Amino acid sequence: MCRWLAYWGTPVLLDTILYKPAHSLIDQSLHSKLGVETTNGDGFGVGWYSAHNDTPALLRDVGPAWNNRNLRELADHVRSPLFFAHIRASTGTAVQQSNCHPFRHGRWMFMHNGAIAGFPLMRRELTLLVDPGLYSDIEGTTDSEVMFYLALTFGLERDPPAAVATMAGVVERIGREHGVEFPLQMTLALTDGERVWAFRYSTAQASRSLFYSSRVDALRRLHPDLGFLQHVSGETRLIVSEPLGDLPGAWNEVPENSYGVVQPGNDELHRFAPVAA
Amino acid sequence: MCRWLAYWGTPVLLDTILYKPAHSLIDQSLHSKLGVETTNGDGFGVGWYSAHNDTPALLRDVGPAWNNRNLRELADHVRSPLFFAHIRASTGTAVQQSNCHPFRHGRWMFMHNGAIAGFPLMRRELTLLVDPGLYSDIEGTTDSEVMFYLALTFGLERDPPAAVATMAGVVERIGREHGVEFPLQMTLALTDGERVWAFRYSTAQASRSLFYSSRVDALRRLHPDLGFLQHVSGETRLIVSEPLGDLPGAWNEVPENSYGVVQPGNDELHRFAPVAA
Amino acid sequence: MCRWLAYWGTPVLLDTILYKPAHSLIDQSLHSKLGVETTNGDGFGVGWYSAHNDTPALLRDVGPAWNNRNLRELADHVRSPLFFAHIRASTGTAVQQSNCHPFRHGRWMFMHNGAIAGFPLMRRELTLLVDPGLYSDIEGTTDSEVMFYLALTFGLERDPPAAVATMAGVVERIGREHGVEFPLQMTLALTDGERVWAFRYSTAQASRSLFYSSRVDALRRLHPDLGFLQHVSGETRLIVSEPLGDLPGAWNEVPENSYGVVQPGNDELHRFAPVAA
Amino acid sequence: MCRWLAYWGTPVLLDTILYKPAHSLIDQSLHSKLGVETTNGDGFGVGWYSAHNDTPALLRDVGPAWNNRNLRELADHVRSPLFFAHIRASTGTAVQQSNCHPFRHGRWMFMHNGAIAGFPLMRRELTLLVDPGLYSDIEGTTDSEVMFYLALTFGLERDPPAAVATMAGVVERIGREHGVEFPLQMTLALTDGERVWAFRYSTAQASRSLFYSSRVDALRRLHPDLGFLQHVSGETRLIVSEPLGDLPGAWNEVPENSYGVVQPGNDELHRFAPVAA
Repeated sequence: MCRWLAYWGTPVLLDTILYKPAHSLIDQSLHSKLGVETTNGDGFGVGWYSAHNDTPALLRDVGPAWNNRNLRELADHVRSPLFFAHIRASTGTAVQQSNCHPFRHGRWMFMHNGAIAGFPLMRRELTLLVDPGLYSDIEGTTDSEVMFYLALTFGLERDPPAAVATMAGVVERIGREHGVEFPLQMTLALTDGERVWAFRYSTAQASRSLFYSSRVDALRRLHPDLGFLQHVSGETRLIVSEPLGDLPGAWNEVPENSYGVVQPGNDELHRFAPVAA
Repeated sequence: MCRWLAYWGTPVLLDTILYKPAHSLIDQSLHSKLGVETTNGDGFGVGWYSAHNDTPALLRDVGPAWNNRNLRELADHVRSPLFFAHIRASTGTAVQQSNCHPFRHGRWMFMHNGAIAGFPLMRRELTLLVDPGLYSDIEGTTDSEVMFYLALTFGLERDPPAAVATMAGVVERIGREHGVEFPLQMTLALTDGERVWAFRYSTAQASRSLFYSSRVDALRRLHPDLGFLQHVSGETRLIVSEPLGDLPGAWNEVPENSYGVVQPGNDELHRFAPVAA
Repeated sequence: MCRWLAYWGTPVLLDTILYKPAHSLIDQSLHSKLGVETTNGDGFGVGWYSAHNDTPALLRDVGPAWNNRNLRELADHVRSPLFFAHIRASTGTAVQQSNCHPFRHGRWMFMHNGAIAGFPLMRRELTLLVDPGLYSDIEGTTDSEVMFYLALTFGLERDPPAAVATMAGVVERIGREHGVEFPLQMTLALTDGERVWAFRYSTAQASRSLFYSSRVDALRRLHPDLGFLQHVSGETRLIVSEPLGDLPGAWNEVPENSYGVVQPGNDELHRFAPVAA
Repeated sequence: MCRWLAYWGTPVLLDTILYKPAHSLIDQSLHSKLGVETTNGDGFGVGWYSAHNDTPALLRDVGPAWNNRNLRELADHVRSPLFFAHIRASTGTAVQQSNCHPFRHGRWMFMHNGAIAGFPLMRRELTLLVDPGLYSDIEGTTDSEVMFYLALTFGLERDPPAAVATMAGVVERIGREHGVEFPLQMTLALTDGERVWAFRYSTAQASRSLFYSSRVDALRRLHPDLGFLQHVSGETRLIVSEPLGDLPGAWNEVPENSYGVVQPGNDELHRFAPVAA
């Protein structure tokens, strides 16, 4: 499977989040504690928004994140208020740039940890449900990218939670039609550059781990000595596959069957359920 | 576009054909004379049969052939009686291993130079015509690979010329339905490890160049001093996008609208026409 | 050999300079007009200064620039007031990231087009002259990197023209001791993030091409309709291996045996000669 | 550090040794049990002798072995009586093809697991001891490659154990001169295509693990049901960083301070000690 991280808040050097923490995503690429595999070395990607372009930038490559010098360079020189990072552990699908997350469509980014069980059996059927106008934009061969294009087909740009719920419903229906008992396993993140949506769900009710950071203003009271917390706004938020360290009070599990929204003002946490479709 | 080469005959070191000739395929990767682009640097592939396995081996990579050390090593150490080699010039499709020719299915290999005009418009429609049982084997995003899987769908393993004719007919029909005047441009090669089929065709009747070598026994009489010709059987044959040198009498253009078969005994040259489907 | 480009002036998106011009560096990677080779596909690099770090950032990779998606992404999202870009055509040295220009040492960047003739013969002798404290920072195997470390050894950080002159003198002396008639061929660029130095010299007095752009304020009078010229300061300057287009009055050849300095205020052009050492 | 494997004996498909065993080298690239790191994903190499060329062939690449398709293809199609395979875990040195083992010089191959402690401090001094005629053949930046070239300098091609002993002595002397208490840690393998030498030594007398397989004729009596053992000669031998499985009686630890020779007829095991030099 994979590990990922979403950052929303005060602009920071990517390094601050990607490399500095004790159990950073880069460390997780070699030593994941909560993942299915300890190693996530089958490619990586980072996508970030900047002031210079409406669409996010992507750096993706096929080698491991831990030894990639271009990623190290970018992390030292790029600041961003909103970025996604992903490290991949392939379960057999080709290790190629077009299979690396995050995926992008216009202003939107999408990344995923999990799998559609039996995907080779239903790849054709699911891909056929993608809007024909979007079909030729599919560049890779992962289940994740098809999930993204299905969600786009079902209205992601208007109502992300509804579109994801429909996508999940379709995957479960078609999975069951192929005799797969537990078709869907997902923690996924979406953004339009303004807000971040993060979902945790699996048909089997045994979803991969997902955590969100506590409100920075609360953490500041707990840890007045931590410099980093003084330099970011109270609204700054991280969502991660596994905690970046063991700071007491810092990490909260996203409950099963739910999704969160990180946005200006109060963030939200809601129930999530696939919609039959 | 691309350049390719097919070898059939007495087992030789790959080097003899891939690097040694004055205008070898490796030289063509930098200095193609007859191609649409002089540079073919967007990946390469070589596929060869050996005594150790029923299926051919593939070495494919995303960088240019001219500086690839693993290709250079293999060429110096692998002998084969039948191999394909291909250098790619992408027209925008992702440069990734799964888009490098030759493609393989069981004992079969396929490689292509040319394009389906307007492919993004009809990618979905064409892909849907691929046998559902084969669909999930498609790993890349090229028109070439879809042409291969369409031909497999239409009976390639039973009757290659008929399957290719049906594939070509389908591409032309769907192309025209999308308002494309000249949908198909192709020189392609196929093999099952016993015989090689090579096709030259384009809707516009302006096909990319394709040549076959003269019979070795005839060449020997013309060039009794050439050592190479003494060491290969009289039936040894090359089919190439462009001649590997300017040996008088060595190269013959494959006519428009035709295909050749290289096989034990007499080789054949036939008319080719798409079959409406 | 190679092609390169140095930009100094008003911060711009890298895209403006790297991709937009008719005969951009990316175009030169496939179709160089003035280079020794038309293709420069053996790796590339871009190095840029930003507000977020004292040292420049590097993106370097081993494939061709023309099909690299990470470079395309960066160019669309990164702005900089001072950047170097380089495309490589190897003459046999390994195609690896550590052989890609620009090279970096602290705040300094260095890039080069040319060669030390007979470098394998004198690699050891030249490398021994590198300051022992710098020796272990050499990561690749090019003559260019050794030239950089020699110049650093001879005081590059205090007086770049003098250090380059000493380096050139040393290369010529050791070359001649090995019987090489014309040891040095170079156009090279240096920067500390404030100023850019560019040198054109060859022992044979037949140096590779090098051009600098005319002053923007003069160009504005010639081409009042060109939007780009309105958006950059009068001092903005480009130095390039070959012109990025054919705008009348825009490009001036750097004379043989000379070096230029691009800096705040008036730029300079001086004679260059190796210093015997 | 790294893991490696040397095979000598009856020609087999590389797959038989590289992928088939339960704890194969490919498995070790993700899940090493006895190594310093569980992951060895910073490049790999395989070198093999064939009937077609006096020198061994090399396939080396910078990504992990576990997802490399070209390695998978070769393993399925290449047979060899003598091959080396190596998976790398870099401790900071660049991840590039020229730093991947095995290294080759003429008919000779060399691979290594371990390190010279403080190598950056003494890289220059050690490299200077390499025969000037060999210096320019050094292509990478690892301590391992310098060890190989030192051994070549000290007569590797005439007397491998003596040359390795002198190399080890030199490394220890120069290390101590730099205040390094335990300069050398090595398990290394050498071959000329006829015999294989394998060394286990470390200054601290705490060497990395190294094992050799029991004689096949003895193993056949223990495990008469194992098909593989029936198909290879009684002299077939493996030397490995860690056992490929847990077959009782199959694996024997190479003692500290010793080296073995695998050759036609009786193999040998001798004491090893550095020679002051």
